[in-house]
Amino acid sequence: MAIKYPVPTINSERNIKVIKTHGMLFENNLNLTNEYYLSRDIALIYKKPTPIQIVRVDYPQRSKAKIVEAYYKIPSTTDYNGIYKGKYIDYEAKETENLSFNFKHIFEHQINHLVKVKKHGGIAFVIIYFKKINEIYLIDIEQFVNEMKSDKKSIPIMRMKEIGYSVSQGYAPLIDYLTVIDNVYFKKA
Amino acid sequence: MAIKYPVPTINSERNIKVIKTHGMLFENNLNLTNEYYLSRDIALIYKKPTPIQIVRVDYPQRSKAKIVEAYYKIPSTTDYNGIYKGKYIDYEAKETENLSFNFKHIFEHQINHLVKVKKHGGIAFVIIYFKKINEIYLIDIEQFVNEMKSDKKSIPIMRMKEIGYSVSQGYAPLIDYLTVIDNVYFKKA
Repeated sequence: MAIKYPVPTINSERNIKVIKTHGMLFENNLNLTNEYYLSRDIALIYKKPTPIQIVRVDYPQRSKAKIVEAYYKIPSTTDYNGIYKGKYIDYEAKETENLSFNFKHIFEHQINHLVKVKKHGGIAFVIIYFKKINEIYLIDIEQFVNEMKSDKKSIPIMRMKEIGYSVSQGYAPLIDYLTVIDNVYFKKA
Repeated sequence: MAIKYPVPTINSERNIKVIKTHGMLFENNLNLTNEYYLSRDIALIYKKPTPIQIVRVDYPQRSKAKIVEAYYKIPSTTDYNGIYKGKYIDYEAKETENLSFNFKHIFEHQINHLVKVKKHGGIAFVIIYFKKINEIYLIDIEQFVNEMKSDKKSIPIMRMKEIGYSVSQGYAPLIDYLTVIDNVYFKKA
């Protein structure tokens, strides 16, 4: 099941190169944020590689495989997962040009995955960047699913401000979402 | 940093196709085991996609991207991670033709990652299939690192039987490693 993705992303442990195109800057900043958390030994959270269906591989040199035909695949789960304060953490990151988040931008199986994560005792959410107003909101998967059940097609920004948590942006980390996680998931306990 | 991998792996949520070649059968059986755990809602554990460095993409049709030049990359972390009984779980799977496991078959940064996972409160181990004798052993990352410090180049099978935990093989699940996890990591607590 090959699908069209906007642009390829290349991640490695110490070197993140992201072709800065529509929809990728937020992801890049999240990756840099996770590198910051990793470098300070605060959390271990990684972006999963984009799944690729490989059709044909050549061996121009004996030591090096060259993939000459491959296609992007739909990810089985979400973009990011890892461990923070002993807890499993799992989320999907989205960016929108609009002042509402349309549910069509997230796969149903990704939502189901996040619901299961929460059920199994993990922290599960969606983090959304509203480009036009340069604001980021984190919304717990349970609340996200409740909104979907409301029979609307999207979450307008005004509603997001009510049910989601604003994530502040700075220099280090760029996207301070673990502070929100602390307030939402750890102060309750 | 492109490296040569033996064979491409194609995973999707409901459909696992693995080209059955040297070193991939164990991985395939682990994937089927994790699908079993997932289907019974016992644990959410997935294999991460193989990271691919994409160099060139063509668009033969407007709706479909075709990758025409790409290379395998060294994974940043380990093969598998997820959640079990509310705990973060992370491991690397290895297969050997020999009667000892040589440390050169695992990357140092993967070991460092697993050590960090344990430090952050997660379950971290290496699972090794000894093909010649059809036996599987699970070894906690702490014990694994202790063996590396012993200045030897490998863990012989006799030593593995002392410090590792034998994993039984069956029909459903094929590789019953969560039973070992129960005994090793949950009975202590």
